[in-house]
Amino acid sequence: MKKYTEMSKEELLALKQELEQEYAQVKALGLSLDMSRGKPGADQLDISMGMMDVLNHETDLRCETGVDCRNYGVIDGIPEAKRLLGEMSEVDPDHIIIYGNSSLNVMFDTVARSMTHGVMGNTPWCKLDKVKFLCPVPGYDRHFKITEFFGIEMINVPMTPTGPDMDMVEKLVSEDPAIKGIWCVPKYSNPQGITYSDETVRRFARLKPAAPDFRIYWDNAYCIHHLYADNHDFLIEILGECERAGNPDMVYKFTSTSKVSFPGSGIAAVAASKANLNDFRKYMTMQTIGHDKLNQLRHVRYFKNLEGLHAHMKKHALLIRPKFEMVLDTLDRELGGLGIGEWTRPHGGYFISFDSMEGCAKDIVARAKEAGVVMTGAGATYPYGKDPKDSNIRIAPTFPSLEELEQAAKIFVLCVKLSSIDKLLAA
Amino acid sequence: MKKYTEMSKEELLALKQELEQEYAQVKALGLSLDMSRGKPGADQLDISMGMMDVLNHETDLRCETGVDCRNYGVIDGIPEAKRLLGEMSEVDPDHIIIYGNSSLNVMFDTVARSMTHGVMGNTPWCKLDKVKFLCPVPGYDRHFKITEFFGIEMINVPMTPTGPDMDMVEKLVSEDPAIKGIWCVPKYSNPQGITYSDETVRRFARLKPAAPDFRIYWDNAYCIHHLYADNHDFLIEILGECERAGNPDMVYKFTSTSKVSFPGSGIAAVAASKANLNDFRKYMTMQTIGHDKLNQLRHVRYFKNLEGLHAHMKKHALLIRPKFEMVLDTLDRELGGLGIGEWTRPHGGYFISFDSMEGCAKDIVARAKEAGVVMTGAGATYPYGKDPKDSNIRIAPTFPSLEELEQAAKIFVLCVKLSSIDKLLAA
Repeated sequence: MKKYTEMSKEELLALKQELEQEYAQVKALGLSLDMSRGKPGADQLDISMGMMDVLNHETDLRCETGVDCRNYGVIDGIPEAKRLLGEMSEVDPDHIIIYGNSSLNVMFDTVARSMTHGVMGNTPWCKLDKVKFLCPVPGYDRHFKITEFFGIEMINVPMTPTGPDMDMVEKLVSEDPAIKGIWCVPKYSNPQGITYSDETVRRFARLKPAAPDFRIYWDNAYCIHHLYADNHDFLIEILGECERAGNPDMVYKFTSTSKVSFPGSGIAAVAASKANLNDFRKYMTMQTIGHDKLNQLRHVRYFKNLEGLHAHMKKHALLIRPKFEMVLDTLDRELGGLGIGEWTRPHGGYFISFDSMEGCAKDIVARAKEAGVVMTGAGATYPYGKDPKDSNIRIAPTFPSLEELEQAAKIFVLCVKLSSIDKLLAA
Repeated sequence: MKKYTEMSKEELLALKQELEQEYAQVKALGLSLDMSRGKPGADQLDISMGMMDVLNHETDLRCETGVDCRNYGVIDGIPEAKRLLGEMSEVDPDHIIIYGNSSLNVMFDTVARSMTHGVMGNTPWCKLDKVKFLCPVPGYDRHFKITEFFGIEMINVPMTPTGPDMDMVEKLVSEDPAIKGIWCVPKYSNPQGITYSDETVRRFARLKPAAPDFRIYWDNAYCIHHLYADNHDFLIEILGECERAGNPDMVYKFTSTSKVSFPGSGIAAVAASKANLNDFRKYMTMQTIGHDKLNQLRHVRYFKNLEGLHAHMKKHALLIRPKFEMVLDTLDRELGGLGIGEWTRPHGGYFISFDSMEGCAKDIVARAKEAGVVMTGAGATYPYGKDPKDSNIRIAPTFPSLEELEQAAKIFVLCVKLSSIDKLLAA
């Protein structure tokens, strides 16, 4: 296939006319498709329905230490839940606190606490003139929204195929004491599906931050979310690595079962050094009497252990792998070799990242919307919603059915072509 | 019975000797009893076990608007949960946001948000030199802990049989713009079981605060927690009253099902003006993708409506009324007429408040502990844990069995007697 960039103006115009007819036809269908959010499909939720039967009126609702999970008490999680999410997080249960239904909420609260009370005895951030976070880009919009909400200045750090640009991270973190954190999705990153390489993790663990209260926000949202049982990524466990490097307190690791059991009805956890966890507990004992222990029990009795979790994740993979492959096939077939876009091929997680020609992303998303396909807003993968090249688009293939997704993917590539032609013609 | 205060030194010494023998005997029993926290007894939790069966693998888990409650979405609560907790809160569902498992958590977050982001556009409290809260005393220790945690200065306001001293509240609130809030448990107050009178509520609604961001934190924790079906207290609904008084935004009302279904596994709600709720939502949309909708559904399908809630609360009352009555009988029988203590006779809630002679509360609690009975720490019902008269003790009769409670109550009155005698002898 001929590259668009090598086509003459006449060729482009002819192609444009053809594609616009196609576009008019799909628009006329009045579709309503959604590739915007990392939501599981209904079929994925069906595979967890057994969880609804785990507890009934005859169940013994005491945890293994004999505590009645129906009543107040046990602020930081029942032991068996710490063990389960400890296995999932690859750390000892002593390094785990179990939270409520949302790890995002824990991240938010962690930033909020740092603002009002500081980190492990350091000055509360609200008393400082300036607080900054490093943001590997493209990244997760909800991370960036949290730091923006608290008035924290965000600095873009480009992602590479092995993780964030570590030369830049090391330089900035060691020079600027106002930099208090970095947002990371280290495995099957949102949106690129990149897993940080061994070297990247080792360099993270060996950072020499100027700020004593600098923390790596290690959002391991997709730790067991593989698409391929025989071809999945490996990530070095960061807590152990930080400890070995003499930086035991430098990282907070977040996990949840949101995309394992039910989004919004899962359980979340933080893994960190004991000193950090004690810092968390000081806040927790003021904030709540305790989280939902019955839901902790429900999860543990359903999944039992790490093998149970992995077996369950294989069922998810069976359902979503065809969706990823179909989108990738469509991109390959329709856009391969045209020189108007690049995309990632993740081995897990929830997203495919697409990079259009510069200055086209907003236009592509707008065209898709007009044809009935909702994409994540262009720019959302960057702090302040500002993609400097206006080229990154996050594709979330899990929520629509395979049939809907097929239509949506076709419309998407059509919009990419149209937008690219207009860009080339205007050049 | 002769008042202790009218006894001669010899009489007191003789009595002391007798009581000390008794005390030595109970101490030798090596008991371990707990009257410290407002926890339901296991028998109370048993009555909600049907809730464990409401959802099963065949249940349709969509809410009434068709949203799949197993997935992300619906940030502020499913409509039927808003209706149920709206009925419980006596407000329209439009004035309700449903939260997670803990109203205390919502109160904490509300103070945290006010610190970092301010209230409805007003200056964030962390930017102010001084922030103060009024604290009706005795009151709920966890309220005071929250304001203390955020460095908010707390001002004691004495409780009266009709609620806080409103002359003092009106004067302080109207004169001092640093006063940003007041903690209230308006019905069956913690620990006295007092319900604010109509006049008190009306005066609250008509406050003229110097601070535009002054808010009444109306923790209606015991709104339907009556001990007597035929003799329960009434409380004027504060949102409506504030609106009628031209102060629609002055109050946040908090409720939860913690002591209705399962503590820690219930659902919580805030009722407030739409302007306030929008202020809450701005924070929520950053903090979380949504709360546990399956638990919302579980509650609604189990309780159905306000009648369902009331019927359920009658079952609770059947179980805890005998406990309250037994403690009150013991206090009447053993301490009545002795002039060494006063206590409240609540019609609902979770506590009885006991006032000893001045300077005796800590000693009584310590003696009880030595004899194997854990009480709420003396002073806990006051900000900073400082009861200026060292006289208030909170009695929580619900958690122990009736048999345990009988022992605990006897030990308690024994400790009161011994402590009072020592006090009188030292005078």
